[in-house]
Amino acid sequence: MYVDVHGHVSAPAELYAYKSGLLSHRGAHGRGKSGVTDDMIRRTLEEPHPSFGRQSHLQHLRDAGIGLQLISPRPFQMMHSESPPFLVEWFTAETNDVIARTCELMPGQFRGVAGLPQTMELEPTAWTKELRRCVEELGFVGTLLNPDPYEGTRQPPGLGDRFWYPVWEALCELDVPALIHSAGCRAPARENYSLHFIQEETLAVAALMQSSVFDDFPDLKIVVSHGGGAIPYQRGRYLAGALRGGKDFDEQLRRVHYDTCLYTRDSIELLIRAVGADRCLFGSEKPGTGSVRDPATGRWVDDIHALIEDIDWLTDGQRSQVFESNARDLFGLKW
Amino acid sequence: MYVDVHGHVSAPAELYAYKSGLLSHRGAHGRGKSGVTDDMIRRTLEEPHPSFGRQSHLQHLRDAGIGLQLISPRPFQMMHSESPPFLVEWFTAETNDVIARTCELMPGQFRGVAGLPQTMELEPTAWTKELRRCVEELGFVGTLLNPDPYEGTRQPPGLGDRFWYPVWEALCELDVPALIHSAGCRAPARENYSLHFIQEETLAVAALMQSSVFDDFPDLKIVVSHGGGAIPYQRGRYLAGALRGGKDFDEQLRRVHYDTCLYTRDSIELLIRAVGADRCLFGSEKPGTGSVRDPATGRWVDDIHALIEDIDWLTDGQRSQVFESNARDLFGLKW
Amino acid sequence: MYVDVHGHVSAPAELYAYKSGLLSHRGAHGRGKSGVTDDMIRRTLEEPHPSFGRQSHLQHLRDAGIGLQLISPRPFQMMHSESPPFLVEWFTAETNDVIARTCELMPGQFRGVAGLPQTMELEPTAWTKELRRCVEELGFVGTLLNPDPYEGTRQPPGLGDRFWYPVWEALCELDVPALIHSAGCRAPARENYSLHFIQEETLAVAALMQSSVFDDFPDLKIVVSHGGGAIPYQRGRYLAGALRGGKDFDEQLRRVHYDTCLYTRDSIELLIRAVGADRCLFGSEKPGTGSVRDPATGRWVDDIHALIEDIDWLTDGQRSQVFESNARDLFGLKW
Amino acid sequence: MYVDVHGHVSAPAELYAYKSGLLSHRGAHGRGKSGVTDDMIRRTLEEPHPSFGRQSHLQHLRDAGIGLQLISPRPFQMMHSESPPFLVEWFTAETNDVIARTCELMPGQFRGVAGLPQTMELEPTAWTKELRRCVEELGFVGTLLNPDPYEGTRQPPGLGDRFWYPVWEALCELDVPALIHSAGCRAPARENYSLHFIQEETLAVAALMQSSVFDDFPDLKIVVSHGGGAIPYQRGRYLAGALRGGKDFDEQLRRVHYDTCLYTRDSIELLIRAVGADRCLFGSEKPGTGSVRDPATGRWVDDIHALIEDIDWLTDGQRSQVFESNARDLFGLKW
Amino acid sequence: MYVDVHGHVSAPAELYAYKSGLLSHRGAHGRGKSGVTDDMIRRTLEEPHPSFGRQSHLQHLRDAGIGLQLISPRPFQMMHSESPPFLVEWFTAETNDVIARTCELMPGQFRGVAGLPQTMELEPTAWTKELRRCVEELGFVGTLLNPDPYEGTRQPPGLGDRFWYPVWEALCELDVPALIHSAGCRAPARENYSLHFIQEETLAVAALMQSSVFDDFPDLKIVVSHGGGAIPYQRGRYLAGALRGGKDFDEQLRRVHYDTCLYTRDSIELLIRAVGADRCLFGSEKPGTGSVRDPATGRWVDDIHALIEDIDWLTDGQRSQVFESNARDLFGLKW
Amino acid sequence: MYVDVHGHVSAPAELYAYKSGLLSHRGAHGRGKSGVTDDMIRRTLEEPHPSFGRQSHLQHLRDAGIGLQLISPRPFQMMHSESPPFLVEWFTAETNDVIARTCELMPGQFRGVAGLPQTMELEPTAWTKELRRCVEELGFVGTLLNPDPYEGTRQPPGLGDRFWYPVWEALCELDVPALIHSAGCRAPARENYSLHFIQEETLAVAALMQSSVFDDFPDLKIVVSHGGGAIPYQRGRYLAGALRGGKDFDEQLRRVHYDTCLYTRDSIELLIRAVGADRCLFGSEKPGTGSVRDPATGRWVDDIHALIEDIDWLTDGQRSQVFESNARDLFGLKW
Repeated sequence: MYVDVHGHVSAPAELYAYKSGLLSHRGAHGRGKSGVTDDMIRRTLEEPHPSFGRQSHLQHLRDAGIGLQLISPRPFQMMHSESPPFLVEWFTAETNDVIARTCELMPGQFRGVAGLPQTMELEPTAWTKELRRCVEELGFVGTLLNPDPYEGTRQPPGLGDRFWYPVWEALCELDVPALIHSAGCRAPARENYSLHFIQEETLAVAALMQSSVFDDFPDLKIVVSHGGGAIPYQRGRYLAGALRGGKDFDEQLRRVHYDTCLYTRDSIELLIRAVGADRCLFGSEKPGTGSVRDPATGRWVDDIHALIEDIDWLTDGQRSQVFESNARDLFGLKW
Repeated sequence: MYVDVHGHVSAPAELYAYKSGLLSHRGAHGRGKSGVTDDMIRRTLEEPHPSFGRQSHLQHLRDAGIGLQLISPRPFQMMHSESPPFLVEWFTAETNDVIARTCELMPGQFRGVAGLPQTMELEPTAWTKELRRCVEELGFVGTLLNPDPYEGTRQPPGLGDRFWYPVWEALCELDVPALIHSAGCRAPARENYSLHFIQEETLAVAALMQSSVFDDFPDLKIVVSHGGGAIPYQRGRYLAGALRGGKDFDEQLRRVHYDTCLYTRDSIELLIRAVGADRCLFGSEKPGTGSVRDPATGRWVDDIHALIEDIDWLTDGQRSQVFESNARDLFGLKW
Repeated sequence: MYVDVHGHVSAPAELYAYKSGLLSHRGAHGRGKSGVTDDMIRRTLEEPHPSFGRQSHLQHLRDAGIGLQLISPRPFQMMHSESPPFLVEWFTAETNDVIARTCELMPGQFRGVAGLPQTMELEPTAWTKELRRCVEELGFVGTLLNPDPYEGTRQPPGLGDRFWYPVWEALCELDVPALIHSAGCRAPARENYSLHFIQEETLAVAALMQSSVFDDFPDLKIVVSHGGGAIPYQRGRYLAGALRGGKDFDEQLRRVHYDTCLYTRDSIELLIRAVGADRCLFGSEKPGTGSVRDPATGRWVDDIHALIEDIDWLTDGQRSQVFESNARDLFGLKW
Repeated sequence: MYVDVHGHVSAPAELYAYKSGLLSHRGAHGRGKSGVTDDMIRRTLEEPHPSFGRQSHLQHLRDAGIGLQLISPRPFQMMHSESPPFLVEWFTAETNDVIARTCELMPGQFRGVAGLPQTMELEPTAWTKELRRCVEELGFVGTLLNPDPYEGTRQPPGLGDRFWYPVWEALCELDVPALIHSAGCRAPARENYSLHFIQEETLAVAALMQSSVFDDFPDLKIVVSHGGGAIPYQRGRYLAGALRGGKDFDEQLRRVHYDTCLYTRDSIELLIRAVGADRCLFGSEKPGTGSVRDPATGRWVDDIHALIEDIDWLTDGQRSQVFESNARDLFGLKW
Repeated sequence: MYVDVHGHVSAPAELYAYKSGLLSHRGAHGRGKSGVTDDMIRRTLEEPHPSFGRQSHLQHLRDAGIGLQLISPRPFQMMHSESPPFLVEWFTAETNDVIARTCELMPGQFRGVAGLPQTMELEPTAWTKELRRCVEELGFVGTLLNPDPYEGTRQPPGLGDRFWYPVWEALCELDVPALIHSAGCRAPARENYSLHFIQEETLAVAALMQSSVFDDFPDLKIVVSHGGGAIPYQRGRYLAGALRGGKDFDEQLRRVHYDTCLYTRDSIELLIRAVGADRCLFGSEKPGTGSVRDPATGRWVDDIHALIEDIDWLTDGQRSQVFESNARDLFGLKW
Repeated sequence: MYVDVHGHVSAPAELYAYKSGLLSHRGAHGRGKSGVTDDMIRRTLEEPHPSFGRQSHLQHLRDAGIGLQLISPRPFQMMHSESPPFLVEWFTAETNDVIARTCELMPGQFRGVAGLPQTMELEPTAWTKELRRCVEELGFVGTLLNPDPYEGTRQPPGLGDRFWYPVWEALCELDVPALIHSAGCRAPARENYSLHFIQEETLAVAALMQSSVFDDFPDLKIVVSHGGGAIPYQRGRYLAGALRGGKDFDEQLRRVHYDTCLYTRDSIELLIRAVGADRCLFGSEKPGTGSVRDPATGRWVDDIHALIEDIDWLTDGQRSQVFESNARDLFGLKW
């Protein structure tokens, strides 16, 4: 069974119209509601989606054989850099609620991963209230964590900074992992949100490897999206630094987990060889950016399960780790 | 027949979900489309709306006897302060297209009033391209003009400044009026968007009265929303100033037109007395902020037609001016 | 007898030369003195003033029959946005001293209303020291309060913000009212100081109506100048909002008092009808902006007493409230 | 006969009350007038002044035997850093007019030195219009030049920068000297206006010595106030630099003239020895900062004429140069 | 023969003391000279270096069998974000001169690659003057190009922006390649200069792939350092985007060349497979960050030649391309 | 014997190459070391220096007969405005260590004066740790104190501000003097570092004279470099101010000490007469800016000992005070 740790909710237009309204009235109309109904949620999951190869979310999962998918907010919609902060709180909670209802409507298929109201106008401690609500009340199994709540407009504290400690504390206490995944990206950053994911993951792995975060929080569970940005590919630079500093480089690199959301087989191979199969979790981000068919192969670009199945040197045990057991262990998903 | 110069489009959630997407991908997905269909437009016009007393847009118009309504974008959604500027252009055009299709679907009922992509990162000359498209290709009869494209975040040039001259030129050339109406409002401004309307209208009338705009553009047609902000009520201050400066105060005050979108009869009476019935245009903003029933009267607060009908000292000619002929003359609406 | 709650001191040139010196040496010469003598004060009150129709302050009052006038600093001279803060303190105190001496010289004619050194570089608590001095030592009966100490250069906290609580506390403790009245206005604001008064009064009434200030300070006494800016005229917008929120709109509107400093009879009528005669206080701002004769009527524009006398539907009791008893009650003026 | 090149006008309070009004209404009242009359001017010159040892301006001159004094605006009042720029223009012109009338009233006693409206919101070319007016219409013989129009709030271009060339051009064309003298000084600068004079003069001499200004404008005539700031005392540093760079240091130092406004005899001696008597002009700034009696000597501190008379090694020719002929030659004052 | 396109000069301490002096006197001492002598250069190349495993530059090259190395400035020393700009110009020229002399002293061993004075206070056109000098007068064969002259302090224009066109023009005209390589990195960026290299290379490849630069400059030759940052590893994301947009992804990826400066064999393999051996150039950055021995292998970490030799699936032709012929073709190095 | 309180270390190029490296890697390489050896130090002291008239440091001292010189860091190299702050700490400590080793190598010739890591990103309390280390562990006898750690980029608190009190406390506790001496100077300041010294010394004396620092720290010992900037020459302005304020001006002026580092005899004479020989300390800054021969005299410009010897009116006692005893007393140097 494939357990996909990197999926995002497919939500009705009304959720995003609600967001649009919040950004327009800036709170003058009060919190209000999105008006999303269960019917809307079902229809959205089952309707072919124009951006995803005109195929529905559920059909994508069925075709790939993804038995269980962890779904979180669409990261680029999270609007962490908007103000005033209660707008971010309202929209985040509304989104998490839609995720929770999606999970309820499809109980075997989905589990929730929270979004947090990561506005820099609130303290991280305030963010963790929503994390607690999602885990304790809505039954979520993890959270997204955006290392750049400024969304490209300024430089936030790096992940090794004590600024983030309240988040690490809450994650340890609740015993759930964080999936490092940035949100939107706007000027003056030069990259779009999609490349910003990669840049932020690169920074995240580098910062966590070299900080004392895992010394201070030995039980902290971190998964870095998209195969860790540039780091596995560029890890030799860090090997040299570790040797100069007398550090155990492999240990540093294996402090975090990585999802396999890379769309080429050689990259996934490099990842697994670099960090070990026990540090890799299957992630497809399906349906999403990669939901387009490659005429050269006839496959969807995001058929990551197929790329992994194609790796001939993986043992059955390793394959099972990557596809299922690592995820079940880390996220506490019952068999 | 009541001709209502101050109505706003009721658009499907998909239009605003489209906006939400633009603000999230910041252009990375390209321009795309909102996916709004004619069916969605019809359904939105006919469905009871939770924010508008659970009554539909069309039912509101029917109940009030509004035979023709000029509809423009919902001002608070116009997002003029967002960046990069092409997002504003894309969303504005998409909104104007929905307005145009609404007018086509209900040909006797609605006429279009454009929104302009008034980002301060573009020159006003660039804004007027959309104005031309709307008037020349979509058959619109006027435009909204937001005197504060910064939406409360900075101070723009006042309406008497030469900055605005390209807009005045285009309006004169196309022979259509502008309805002065600000858009959203965000910090550091202290007011919400609704009070910002009033503050901006006050500034607008004061600036236009005291500038040389109408000397330089004698054919310019300006309607100021919501009864001109504070000015008719506070006009005595300007009378004193005009007397000191040897100016004809009445002439100054009557350089612009005013809509009647005030929700108390005494205010409408004061307006008509202060500026003359020939300077007043019926505007209801229906359905909108005022679409709530007042238990004291049983009426909708925005039953402005009823308030005007109640004014006993109005002659039939004046009543006809306010309700219909001023609007037909100014906006060039055939009888 | 007419009691005018809105008068401003006519001070000798030496007071303003003192101010000019402060702004030039920025404190390098120490506090110094204005050198204003009693003779200078008397002469200034009795000399025809070129800006006020070439008639003296006292003659204006005599002609209008104003038996008692509350005088405060000329608001536009208060320089709250200047720096360093001790300059504001020195000039404010010097001005209040001139007011106090004016009251002493004309004991039946004038009572003092304080200016406060409202620089944002000092805490509001520091402002209240001067308030205490004026009330407790100089016998003043109220204070001006400027809701925009930045004088148009930045956005201050709104009047509903806890920032202002130390002022409310001091006012309640001393049992004197505040007359809301802004001071100067400079770029980047688009309006001049006179229109800034109106904009700030609009914001002030809106903020106070919707805040919990009067819940927290039930004994607080606030008078808003110039008939409350735009709010009585635009109050219908707030009626709609109150109905949606289940609030008692009339109660909100009547939380503050309003002075009648409007120069047209219809506006004063609208004000009294909207808020009630028991909430209106006669204010003429005489001599001032309106001290110019209207050739159409032969009256001074600021002959507000005459406009009120002209209102035929006012009862004697209401007339007495507006002209005298509201002021005596609110400001604690003996009969 | 003593010709004093460094005097400042003693103007009536009404001039500064006018300035205070401008800073308060920021132009809303229009340009207006100060209302200064010839009687006021005469009275101000003849009345004992509390800041100047309770002795009048004219008495100070008579006691010192100053036969002719060049008078310019009080520098610290010039408000070059205020905005909008027309306020600076209005006040400067009004001040120059008072100077011109003072000269007319006392034709043998005073000659005018202009102030310029040196706001950085105007181009230097705009400043020179007032210079032309003063020289060509009012008969002034020179101008003040403030090297820091920002008055301590920012760093302006140095005097060697091409920014200043339009001023040099106009001075050469009109054939009048500039007296370098800064105006006010405000935070964030750490010094008060008086020490700012010294700091700016130091910068001025250093900049002019090392620039190509005098190569490009060989006829330019510059007098630096207060003995050139620190430079004559610290000139050895520049000697070392000149030797390293192969420059003629004495030639550099003597490109400008210096006034003797130093209040200790040894400093004046050092100045004359360092730059030569042919480069020194008698300046007393009387009455002013130094108009206080020193109990140790019984003299006024600003009895600079006496300090110079005390220098025993000066030849008669040198004495005459310093006291009279340099000034007559440079400023074109007839004998 | 190994031709190494990615080497940096080993310069005497005096060069960097010169830089330190420039940053201290900020130009006050004039341009001056570093005082570097040929003896110093020789000694520096032959002396064991404490940061490079206590082995000399030349010994490193001999041990690796690098027959020809292209040497450029040490990137992290280039100080492009310093001011005023002439400091950057002076130091850049001095560094290029040391490179030129190093090449002269060791004619068979080294060829020069220029640094450019890439301060953002100068136009790119100004940078190209030094490029011309280096190519035309000093015989250099290429240039470094820093995509972030702000060195992490702000966001520069992306490489697809027209800002960079003057550089592309000069490169085409001179027919030399640019090696994309950032310089220093300072706060507020979160990464150190070494990770900044990777982040900037990722941005560079993404920007160039998606821009019209190669349409406008078909002859432009670009080499991206360190294997192209994250892009080859993450290229699947771009494949998906290209398929959606109908672009030829392989063609995009192969618009630029890549050097092999990656310290793990699997990364080099991935690179060569992803972009083709004809797009890869041997680069070792030796001696440098990687000049530390790995006890696990006994090799220097930067023994990149050995990693490539180990790749068993490379044909002789491919190996020759990577090690020599691509470099000779691109940089115009004679056989 | 001449005791020179104003000398600066002549350090090997490696110290400044170390600084250059710090500014390039911004800490990424860790603290590291400069690699300066005793041999390098000796060679640097004995080698002719191209900037100092091609004569060595020791030869300069021998020629001048300077028996003991207090040496501190080269001020313009101190880089107080660089960031992050640990770079400043590392370089300052390395420099102080080189000074300490220089003193050890030449025990009779030199004594150390510390540099402090005066970055404004650290509290002054943090600066004093290095002061304690230098005095208590390295045997230094005083410290430089830079009144402008921003190095011309912003305005720091004046020396009279409580900001500096932790420094005064530490100086008193350790019983060592501070030599006021600024460091570098960069834009937007208009002056170079050398003139910045003078401007800062002027501000320093003015601030200390007029503050309560010496009331609060009666034992504080301050020496102001370069003869106190402009103040002794301009002291008459302060005399006038003191008389107006009833202060004892001589007492104010004599609160600090002054060094004689002025390169003209008349300036030194003025200094000694103005402040008294008991307040003057011989300082030559040799070798330095003044180490150039004046062809007019054949002397080095910085032959300040000769200028003092030339003053014929100095008594032997005064001469001894200036040349030796004041320094021995203030710095606690044994005879």
